[in-house]
This record gives sequence, C-alpha cells and structure tokens, in this order.
Amino acid sequence: MRKIYQAITLSLFIICLFPPSLTNAKTFNAESFTLDNGLQVVVIPNHRAPVITHMVWYKVGAADEKQGLSGMAHYFEHLMFKGTDKLAPGEFSRIVKNLGGNDNAFTGQDYTAYFQSISVQHLEKLMRMEADRMVNLKPPKEGFMSEKKVVLEERRQRTENDPRGLFSEQMQSALYVNHPYGTPVIGWLNEIKNYEWEDVKEFYDTWYAPNNAIVIISGDVTAEQIKPMAESIYGVVKPKTIMARKRPEVPPAIGDTTMTLKHPQIHQPAFQKIYLVPSSAQNKQDSLALQVLQEVMSGGATTRLYKNLVVDQKKAVSASLSYRSGALDYASLWVSGTPAQGIKLEELENLIEAEIINVIENGVTENEVKDAIQRLEDQAVFARDSLSGPAMIFGQALTTGSTIDAVENWSEDIATVTPAKVQDAAKKYLSKSEPWIRVPITGYLRPIDKPAIEAKAGAAQ
Amino acid sequence: MRKIYQAITLSLFIICLFPPSLTNAKTFNAESFTLDNGLQVVVIPNHRAPVITHMVWYKVGAADEKQGLSGMAHYFEHLMFKGTDKLAPGEFSRIVKNLGGNDNAFTGQDYTAYFQSISVQHLEKLMRMEADRMVNLKPPKEGFMSEKKVVLEERRQRTENDPRGLFSEQMQSALYVNHPYGTPVIGWLNEIKNYEWEDVKEFYDTWYAPNNAIVIISGDVTAEQIKPMAESIYGVVKPKTIMARKRPEVPPAIGDTTMTLKHPQIHQPAFQKIYLVPSSAQNKQDSLALQVLQEVMSGGATTRLYKNLVVDQKKAVSASLSYRSGALDYASLWVSGTPAQGIKLEELENLIEAEIINVIENGVTENEVKDAIQRLEDQAVFARDSLSGPAMIFGQALTTGSTIDAVENWSEDIATVTPAKVQDAAKKYLSKSEPWIRVPITGYLRPIDKPAIEAKAGAAQ
Repeated sequence: MRKIYQAITLSLFIICLFPPSLTNAKTFNAESFTLDNGLQVVVIPNHRAPVITHMVWYKVGAADEKQGLSGMAHYFEHLMFKGTDKLAPGEFSRIVKNLGGNDNAFTGQDYTAYFQSISVQHLEKLMRMEADRMVNLKPPKEGFMSEKKVVLEERRQRTENDPRGLFSEQMQSALYVNHPYGTPVIGWLNEIKNYEWEDVKEFYDTWYAPNNAIVIISGDVTAEQIKPMAESIYGVVKPKTIMARKRPEVPPAIGDTTMTLKHPQIHQPAFQKIYLVPSSAQNKQDSLALQVLQEVMSGGATTRLYKNLVVDQKKAVSASLSYRSGALDYASLWVSGTPAQGIKLEELENLIEAEIINVIENGVTENEVKDAIQRLEDQAVFARDSLSGPAMIFGQALTTGSTIDAVENWSEDIATVTPAKVQDAAKKYLSKSEPWIRVPITGYLRPIDKPAIEAKAGAAQ
Repeated sequence: MRKIYQAITLSLFIICLFPPSLTNAKTFNAESFTLDNGLQVVVIPNHRAPVITHMVWYKVGAADEKQGLSGMAHYFEHLMFKGTDKLAPGEFSRIVKNLGGNDNAFTGQDYTAYFQSISVQHLEKLMRMEADRMVNLKPPKEGFMSEKKVVLEERRQRTENDPRGLFSEQMQSALYVNHPYGTPVIGWLNEIKNYEWEDVKEFYDTWYAPNNAIVIISGDVTAEQIKPMAESIYGVVKPKTIMARKRPEVPPAIGDTTMTLKHPQIHQPAFQKIYLVPSSAQNKQDSLALQVLQEVMSGGATTRLYKNLVVDQKKAVSASLSYRSGALDYASLWVSGTPAQGIKLEELENLIEAEIINVIENGVTENEVKDAIQRLEDQAVFARDSLSGPAMIFGQALTTGSTIDAVENWSEDIATVTPAKVQDAAKKYLSKSEPWIRVPITGYLRPIDKPAIEAKAGAAQ
C-alpha cells in the first residue's frame, strides 16, 4: 500500500504542526463519554462542512514492544489493512476512497492511530469497519510475509540509505539508555526480518481491544448524535485485560558523549545536541516553561537564536532549539545549528551554548515571554481550524498520559508562565554542570573532505 | 553476608586468571553425565588431596532479566543464602564453614554460580543443601527487604562512588545498543529499589531448575563414585519447562562515538576503546585468532604494545589490548592506555591505533604467533593446577554455548592459529573503515584541572 509508506512522516508532520501544546483554552469544546466496554469516545464538534475525521487511537506504540521485536507496532499498523472475514486485504482503503474519503495510519512510541476523513454520512460505515478490524483481523499468511518486505523496504529507503537518519537513531539510542525510546519506531532491520507469525498474533491479542482504544471524531457531529451509534457498533466489542504500560527508567550518566559522522552524503557540517527533559505528563509546569523557552529561543525570525546568530552575527545558516512535550515518559529537547561559510562547528556550538548560558544566568524578559505566549496562542487558533488537527491533538494527549481538561485548559496554563519559570527551567534542564538525570548527547555531522585540522582528534585519521 | 559483597569481583578475578581460552588440550579428562531430570554433572578428577570444589552453575544471568528488573540475577544470588524449610537464613554458609570449607557465589551476564571448597567427605552434605535450595528456597520477607539494602549498598560503594565504574558502565551501554550486555550485572540503582516480591518469585520459578543447571565437581572423586550420589540427591528434583535464551542483536552503527569524563577523582588521563567482536560461541575460529592477537599485542613485557610504547618510545605508562572470549552472545575487545608524563591522550591513542593498523597492513611474524601460543599453553598448564580453576573454566564454557570437547581440545585448536589468521582477524574486527557490526566506543578519562587546550572542543567549556 503506497500511501502507508508515508504514514510515519505524515504523523510527525501533523504533530509538529499541531502539538498538544499549541491548543487554545476551552475552544475545542470536546465532549467525551466512555462505553461499558471501556472504549473512550471524544467528539470535537465543527459544523462548517458536513465532513468528519474519524480516528481510532490505540494505547500501544513502539515503546511497548517486546525485546527483540522492535518495529512490531508499526508493522502491525500495516497489517491492519490486510483484511478480516468481512473485508479483503486492501479493501478497507478502497472503500474509503470509493466513498470519496481518504485514510491512513501512523505509529509513534506511545500510540498507533488510524484515521479517515470523509463525508459525515459515511461515519457509520467507517465505525463498522474499524470495530471489525479492532478484534477480527485475519490477514492471510502471504500478507504477513509480503508486508514484512514492504516494511523492510521502507526502513531501507528512509533510514539505511540516509546517514542522517541512521545517525539520529544512534543519538537517540545513546540518550535513552535502558529505555525503549532509544529504539526507533520502525524497528531494527534484523528484528523486522525475524518476526514470526506468533509474535504478530500475540501483539494483537495483547494490545488491540476497545478498552485500550480511543475513538475521536472531529467534525459535523455532536456527542449526542454519536453515542447511540458508538454504543451499537463499538460497544459490542468485548474488552480484554490490558497490562499496565510500565517503562524502565533512564539511569543517570556522567561525562560527555559526542558522536561524529563523516559521510560522503553530508555536504554541510551541522551539529545537534539532545537533552533529556520531562514530558508534559512527567512535569506539566516545567513542560509549559520549556514550551515558552523554545518559543523565546527559536520561535521565529525575531527570537534569540535566529536573530543573534543568523541575522546579526552571521555565524550560522540555521540555529534552533526544539522541545517536543508529548510523551508518556521522557521528552527530549534538540538544539541544532548549521554554521555559516567559514565558521567552525565548534564555534557555532559554543555560541549557541553561550545563548543558553545567558538565559540560565540572566533570564529572559517580560516582553519576550509575553510575545512567545501570544505566538503560541495564535498558532493554537490556527490549529483549531482543521478537522484532523484537533483530533490529532486529543489523540496524542490522551495516549500519553494527558487529559481532555489539560488540553482544553492549555491556553490558560501557558499564560501563567513567567520569565522566572523560563529561567528556572533552563537552569534545571540545560545546565552543563548539573544535568537532569543524564548529560545530553552531542552529534557532529561532517563532510568527508573536511580538512583534518577542523576534525576532532578522536575522529581524525 | 560480608563475603557476598565480594562475589562479583572474585568471579571476575578468577575468570581473568583462567579464561576458557587458557586451557590445555585433553588434560582435564573431564567426565560428564546427564541425569534423567536434565541436570548435567561434570567431574574433573584431581587426586592430589582429599578435597573437592563443588559448583552449581545456572544458565541464567543478568542478560536474561526482564526489562526494568536489572540486577535481579545478582540479587537473587544473594537471596539463595536466605534459607529453606531445612536451613535458616545464613545457615548454608555457617555449615560449610563449620565443616572447614568455604563457599561463595557470583553472577555474570550469562550465568549464576555457587561454589564450595571442602574436604571430599562432606560432598554429600553439600549436594543435599544445593539440591534443597535449587527449588525449595523460602527466604523470609524481611530477608527480601534487608538484602535489597545490602545490594543497593554494594552498588553505591562499587559504582556510584566510583566515577570510573560509572563511566565503564556507560561505555558498555553505548556499545551494546539494544542488547542486555549494555546493562550492568549489578543492575541500575532505581530498578534494584523497585523489585517486588512477585518479581523475585517469578525469576526463581522461571530459571532455577535441574535442567537449567550444571553441577561441576573438581577434585578427589571420579564420575563413577559421584553418579549414584548425584542421582539420589539431585536426580529427585523435578525439572521445569525452561524458555530459550533468545537475545536481541546489536544493530549496526556508523560514525564515531566518544565519551569524556572529567572528574576530581581522576588524577591521571587515560583512554579506553571498546570494540564489539565475536565470542568463542559466535565464531570459534576467529575467537582463537583474537586470543592469539591479544597475546601478541599485550601478552607481557616483550610484546608489541608494552615493548614499543612503554619501553622503547616511553610514550605510555601502560598500553594494552584485552579480549574476553567467553560470552553467550557478543564479546568485547578493550584497548587502553595511560600516557607518560607530557604525552597527550590523543597522541597515545594514535600510537596504539598505528600499532593496530600495522598488524592489519603488515601482519605478525611466525615467531610472535609461536611464542604467543606457547605462553597461552603454559598458562593453561598453570590453570589446571588448582581445583577451582578448571571448574570455573568448564562452568563458564558450558553456560556460554561451549562444550566439554571444545574446552578439552582448546590446546590443539589454538595451535592451528597462523599469522595470516591473526592478521585477518585484526582486519575484520579492528579496521576503522569497515567495523564489524558497529563502530567502537572511545572513552577519555581526564583530570579536572587539565589545561583547556588539551580538552576536546566538545567537552571544553
């Protein structure tokens, strides 16, 4: 299925556009109810047009896979299109397409989600099909083997042939020691190859159940309309005993870790540094402060990193600080930069580090924080505008330990962030002398023909 | 139990003295039989004195622990001294002591072992006690909690308070991505704290059984004498279904990874580089070549690294290459060095690297290989001399995928290694341009007052 190739990229794209942090307070007016079998249904009314986005989110992702079976959640996402007793392989998507809609799916560390956007009159049909594959999946054995090839090819194209992709995977493995977030969502090549049919079946039996799912419907409907339909279709699916998602902790680490990749496919030097920081689920207040910190540092052409290093000092082609708050466990904060012509990687790294130290030591201004919050809230207004955006936001929030109220109140909450809180968060999580839990990982990407004098001793040969 | 504190160190010490690689061919004359319940018994006759070493090896170690329960194998080793219906907590060791013997235990990634050295007349008593705690362990709940404190204190003393220990753990985590060897045998501090009684019980029920154990008796006995005793004592213990030890693979990694630790407790700079290489179980022929390579490079005062770098060029205080062959999965090869006064860490690193490149490009001489094999065989003769040494060798070999024959034939096998095989192994596993599976990890230990000019840019502040 060609479109499934795009699943992960699509999801990252959408979630970057509409992170749960970028939502306006109580403007979604989401309604929610839970069926007797444990299935939660969230309805986000939007009556501009007679269309809906229908999503089913499962509270299982790559981080829930068994050791040695990495990529299983994503592989299983592919398999969900391979048919049931009522649907032939591939028929699910063909039906959606024939009804004028589109569908897709994606997998993250903490969730797997399936969605369709379609005219509201077809919602019932979609529900029936989703409820069917929730527990009645019957992929033919050939489908199992051929889909393995599809996923292996997906991994080869996206990661194995992309040194940057491989390098990012490795940096995350180095950061998330002892934690499944260190394993890429798509899985390690050799483990994908080794899946057995029994592993696949066990994964489905363990995680796919109404009481481990959230149905989100965004569009021209109300909860009142939806409830009887959901009860009669989803409500008859039997619940299962679902095990708790208990993840190991990242152990403390001292010392600096740097990784260097020299590769013919790298034409411009760049560096990136990943810090382990709390997710919104782990520490809501600090997460809010980190969201504002990101916006103050890297929220556009007039904010610190870009203005100081790219525009004023002309030391960098790009410089950014990016925080991803949504995760059941730890989040990460990425600092990255590409130096301007003639500027060494280490010089730019030190300049960005100096900007961080400046925040830690001298804080940020009232105006910067006010502007950052305003921009974040503006983005939230924009996020509200689509059908799929809000559904994505609620789905990600509810599968990563957050709540409907937290999403609805985000706008009020973010407005409580002060310059002192931003400075405290920078101090707590980005300080070089006292890192939180563990030191960050620094990665250098270097062209292969870089003069030896610029290369680091450890990497030079 | 004070002596248990020493368990792991003791085991490493003994195994370093007597690795399975250092054993002479067919000189042990080990006899082996397997009881109906699956228990393997190995007898190594040695009639110099009426004493024996009695060991029970379980084919379970730290690498078999469940995610989030690191250190459980070692913790459980402690618990095995906490009593059964027949023995009070601590009584096992008291009885051994009162009978004039000594006992101890240790845990590795692939095994857990218990041993006693004692007069031969008490063997039956020891067997009864070992057979009893094999399946009848009944530690009091207080024993569970108090032993947790003991193990936590052990970890604090040995690792948390030792920056080198922490750093070595981190280097191994960085090397063994996705593999349990990246988790320290003693476990991560926070996971030891979180053990529940149910976890402990499940571990025991899963792994402790006669068909997952090997009894090794070295000393003044014969298999013929032992067999009826083993049958009547160990033979009555019921077998269990034991799951296969299926470990994940280390995924490929490109790029260089360096880790730097600056710490007030480090007074002398040093570096170490860990290569992922095959164990004897993974590739016997290449492992034999690596054993000889180690001996050629680092087998004493007249071999390459020491002679060239310490004696002749006076660039180093120490320089070594060390290969540990015994593992169910991957092995590792450590290269390390401490520079002489005034020599920079990177200079010594490059000099050692040049010695490795020299082997890759120009090979080693017939004489070097002949001498190395002779020294290895001499060490094997020495290893044979004790009671516990051969028992250790067989125990480690049989719990890491090797066989009695392989141990007995080691001397013949090592003699087949040629200069070409040594060169090929160096090329295959130590080449910088084409690493095996993944790149090595380089670690730098630096005093905190090192002048900034010597520090690497990434670590500089």
